[in-house]
Amino acid sequence: MSKGLPKRSEDYSLWYNELVKRADLAENSAVRGCMVIKPYGYSIWEKMQAELDRMFKETGHTNAYFPLFIPKSYLSKEASHVEGFAKECAVVTHYRLKNSEDGKGVVVDPEAKLEEELIVRPTSETVIWSTYKNWIQSYRDLPLLVNQWANVVRWEMRTRLFLRTAEFLWQEGHTAHATKQEAIDETVQMLNVYATFAESFMALPVVKGVKTPNERFAGAEDTYCIEAMMQDGKALQAGTSHFLGQNFAKAFDVKFATKEGGLDYVWGTSWGVSTRLMGALIMAHSDDNGLVLPPKLAPIQVVIVPIFKSDEELDRISEKAKEIVSKLRKLGVSVHFDHRDTHKPGWKFAEYELKGVPLRIAMGPRDLENNTIELARRDTLTKETINLNEIEIDSFIVAKLEEIQTTIYQKAFDFRTTHTTEVNSWEEFQDVIENKGGFVSAHWDGSSETEDKIKELTKATIRCIPLDQKEEQGTCVFTGNSSKGRVLFARAY
Amino acid sequence: MSKGLPKRSEDYSLWYNELVKRADLAENSAVRGCMVIKPYGYSIWEKMQAELDRMFKETGHTNAYFPLFIPKSYLSKEASHVEGFAKECAVVTHYRLKNSEDGKGVVVDPEAKLEEELIVRPTSETVIWSTYKNWIQSYRDLPLLVNQWANVVRWEMRTRLFLRTAEFLWQEGHTAHATKQEAIDETVQMLNVYATFAESFMALPVVKGVKTPNERFAGAEDTYCIEAMMQDGKALQAGTSHFLGQNFAKAFDVKFATKEGGLDYVWGTSWGVSTRLMGALIMAHSDDNGLVLPPKLAPIQVVIVPIFKSDEELDRISEKAKEIVSKLRKLGVSVHFDHRDTHKPGWKFAEYELKGVPLRIAMGPRDLENNTIELARRDTLTKETINLNEIEIDSFIVAKLEEIQTTIYQKAFDFRTTHTTEVNSWEEFQDVIENKGGFVSAHWDGSSETEDKIKELTKATIRCIPLDQKEEQGTCVFTGNSSKGRVLFARAY
Repeated sequence: MSKGLPKRSEDYSLWYNELVKRADLAENSAVRGCMVIKPYGYSIWEKMQAELDRMFKETGHTNAYFPLFIPKSYLSKEASHVEGFAKECAVVTHYRLKNSEDGKGVVVDPEAKLEEELIVRPTSETVIWSTYKNWIQSYRDLPLLVNQWANVVRWEMRTRLFLRTAEFLWQEGHTAHATKQEAIDETVQMLNVYATFAESFMALPVVKGVKTPNERFAGAEDTYCIEAMMQDGKALQAGTSHFLGQNFAKAFDVKFATKEGGLDYVWGTSWGVSTRLMGALIMAHSDDNGLVLPPKLAPIQVVIVPIFKSDEELDRISEKAKEIVSKLRKLGVSVHFDHRDTHKPGWKFAEYELKGVPLRIAMGPRDLENNTIELARRDTLTKETINLNEIEIDSFIVAKLEEIQTTIYQKAFDFRTTHTTEVNSWEEFQDVIENKGGFVSAHWDGSSETEDKIKELTKATIRCIPLDQKEEQGTCVFTGNSSKGRVLFARAY
Repeated sequence: MSKGLPKRSEDYSLWYNELVKRADLAENSAVRGCMVIKPYGYSIWEKMQAELDRMFKETGHTNAYFPLFIPKSYLSKEASHVEGFAKECAVVTHYRLKNSEDGKGVVVDPEAKLEEELIVRPTSETVIWSTYKNWIQSYRDLPLLVNQWANVVRWEMRTRLFLRTAEFLWQEGHTAHATKQEAIDETVQMLNVYATFAESFMALPVVKGVKTPNERFAGAEDTYCIEAMMQDGKALQAGTSHFLGQNFAKAFDVKFATKEGGLDYVWGTSWGVSTRLMGALIMAHSDDNGLVLPPKLAPIQVVIVPIFKSDEELDRISEKAKEIVSKLRKLGVSVHFDHRDTHKPGWKFAEYELKGVPLRIAMGPRDLENNTIELARRDTLTKETINLNEIEIDSFIVAKLEEIQTTIYQKAFDFRTTHTTEVNSWEEFQDVIENKGGFVSAHWDGSSETEDKIKELTKATIRCIPLDQKEEQGTCVFTGNSSKGRVLFARAY
C-alpha cells in the first residue's frame, strides 16, 4: 500500500471507492458500468451464496436456469413491468455465424439482423412465467418453488462498484401457488429469510417493511423489503420480496385445474438479493483502516504472522503455528499462516487490516519462550497478549470470533438507533434529513403526490412502511393531512 | 408418462431428445437455441459443479467474475482467436435508458446506439487478459490461478439440448505463469483433474490426448482434451485444457519483472468444461427405460416406495421407512421417502426409473412381517429381496452404491474397448467408421490436408493424439506416407 485510505469523515464516497479497489474486492472493467469481481471479493460473495442457498433449500426451493435472452415482445406482456424495465436494457440486434458460407467458401452475410430483437435479462419474470405455462396444469404441480443464480443487466448511466452496476450477479426466486394466501405467506417467508441472513451473517440490522406504490417492483401487487443503514446515515435497500398477485399468470396465461374442479390463474411471488449486498457489507462496518468483516463471512477468519529474523527462528515459530492451525481447522475455523519472507510483518499487519481479517495472531521468539501470542482484533483495533497455558486456544478463538460477530452487529444496531429520529414538523424533518441524516420516522398522508414532493424538496424517499408500524393517529409532516402511522424516510443509495 | 421412450436402437437421436425432456432435465426455450435447465437437471449440474469446484480449489485456484460483455475490438487483438470466435457471437448494438428524458419529462432518445458494439462473451480470454495486464507487474504476482463459473453464448444454427446450445453454462480457468514449463504443467494438471472427475464421478472412461492443429482452440499453442465414447459409438469431447503460450500476453501486452531483473511476457493457460458434460453423462449410461445415473452424481441415490392399501398400512410402513431414512442420512446417503397417495407404486417405479435413481426400496405389509425389503438396482434392472436381520442396512446400501458406481464405469469401459479398433488399411478404416463406429486407431501422416480429406470422405475427425501414444513406425492409412504412431479417429458430437 502506497498510502492510507481517504477518511470516511472527509469523503465517504471516495473512501468507499478506494476501499473496494485496494482491498481487492472489485474494479471497473473496460466495458462501461460492468465490474470485475476480484478473487478476494468473490470469495466473500461465495460465502454469502452458500448460506443463502442453504436457507433457500431448507425452505423447499430448488435451483434451475433460464435463458439470458428475452424476446423483446415478452416484456410488454405485463403492462407495468414493461414500463419499469424496457428502458434500461441492453439490446441484442445482430448475430454473427461461423457457417455463414454458401458452401463454396464464399461468405454470404457474416452478420445478420435478428428477426426479433432480444434483450439481455434485467430480471426473469417474463421468460420464467412463459415457461411455467407449460409446467403447470393442475394443483398437483403447485407450489412450484424455484430459484436461479444468474447475472442480469440493467443499463445505468451512473454506476458504482457493487451498488449500481450495469451487470450484476444475483439470485431470483420465482414461485407459483394455488392460493393468494399461500403466495403472500411465501413472500413474507422469503423476506424473513433475507432479514435473518442480513442480521445473523452480515451482522447488519435491517428494518422489514412494505414499499409504497411509488417504490413497488414493476408488476408486483406488494413489494416487501429490508432496509439497512450505512455509516453515512444513508439507507440501502438490501433485498426485496414481491407478491405478484396473478399479474404474470394473467400476462402469460398460466392457469391450473383446482382441487375443486375449477380453473384459476396461478398466484406468484419473486424475490432477490444481489452483489449489492457486498456494498452494504462494506459500507456498514468498515473503517478508515480498511474492511471490517463479520467472522461468519470472512474468507480468512484468523491470520498468523510470524515475527522472525532468521530461518531458524521461523522454523521454531512455524512448528508452534502449525499446531494452532491444525487445532483451529478441526473446529472449522478458516486460518491462514502467512510465513512469506518476501514481506515484512508490518506490511502484513496493514494488509490484513485492509482486508478485514477478524483476528490476527503474531508470534515472535519471545512469545515462544513465554508460550504466549499477541492477538489483535480487527473490529476494535485492540491487542492483547494471551498466555497459552491459561486457555484452550481453539475454543478461545471460536468464542472470540462469536464475540466479534456480536460486537459488529451491536455497533451497527446502536448506530442505527442513534440515527433514527421521530419528527413531527416539516422544519424538523428538513433539518434532520439535511444535517443529521439517518432514518426519519414521520407521519405521511398516504398520497404519492406528497411522497414525490418530499423527494423533490429533500431527496428523501419513503424507505418502507415498517411491518411493525404502530397505529398512531397523527398528521402528515408535509401536508398536515391525517395519518394513521409513521413511515421511514431517508436519503438512499 | 403417456408412453415409453423411443428405443436407442431405432432412433438414438430421438431417444436422447425425448429422454432429456421426459426426465425433466432441460427443454428448449422460446429463444432459439437457448435452453431452460429444469430443477432436476440443474441439481445434477450442481453436484458436478460442487466436485469440480472442490478440485479446482484443492489445486490452488480461486474464483472470480469478469464481465459478460466484451468490446468488439478486443476479439481482434489475438489473430487466430478472432478467426475462431468472431463469427458465432451475439452482438449488442443498442441500449435503452431509464432516464432518457430531457429533464422536462420529454423523452429525447429512448434507444441509443452504442459507440462500440459489444459482443456477449463466447469465452473470456480477451477480457480477462486485458484485466491481467493491471494485476501482473512482477514475478511475485505469479502464478495467478483464477477460475470463473459463468454463462457464455455462441450463436449456433443447429442446437441440441446440453450438447450444443447458443447459451451454455461452464467454468473457465485462466492462469498466468512466469515460465513456459510451469504453464504446461498447469495445462496437464487441469487435464488430469478433468479426467479424474469424468472417471471417478461421471463413471465415464476418457482418453487423454492432444488435439491436432486443425482442432486446436483459437489462440492456443496446444489443446489437450479428454474424449469419451457415447453408446452410439460417437465420440464426445468432454473437456479441454489449453496451453496458450505467450499469445494472449502479447496481444494484451502483459509483461512481468522477472526474478532475475528482466522483463518478459507472461505464459498462459485456459481450461473449461460445460453443461455439455450433462449430455455426455446422459448418453454414456442411460437405457431405453430412462436415465442411468452414477450414484456419486445422483440427486436422489435411494428412493423408498411404500406399498399400501390403507392409512394404517402406510403408518406402519412409514415407521420402518423413516428408521432406514435416518440411518442412511447419517452416512450421507441422499434418500427420498415417497409416501404420496396421489400416485400408485407402479407409476412411481416407472418415474424413478426414468429419473435414474440408482436404488429403489419397496416395502409392503408382507415385508414388515418378514423384516425384508425389495431392493431394485436401476443400472442392471435387477431386484432382490433383502432380509434385514442378515445385514446392516446402512453399510449394505453404501456398499451397493459403490458397487453400482463401479459397474457403470466398467460397462462404459468395456463398451469403449470393444468399440476401439486398430485399422491398417483405408478400406478397413472406411468400413469400421461406417458400419461399426467407435474409435479407430490408425496411422496418420501428420498433415492437415490428409485430416481434412479424411473428414470430407468419412465425417471422421482426429479426436486426439493420445498422451500414451506408443512409438510405432507405420504408414498413413490414407496417403501411405510414413507415420510414427497411431491417432484416434471417430465421428463426433
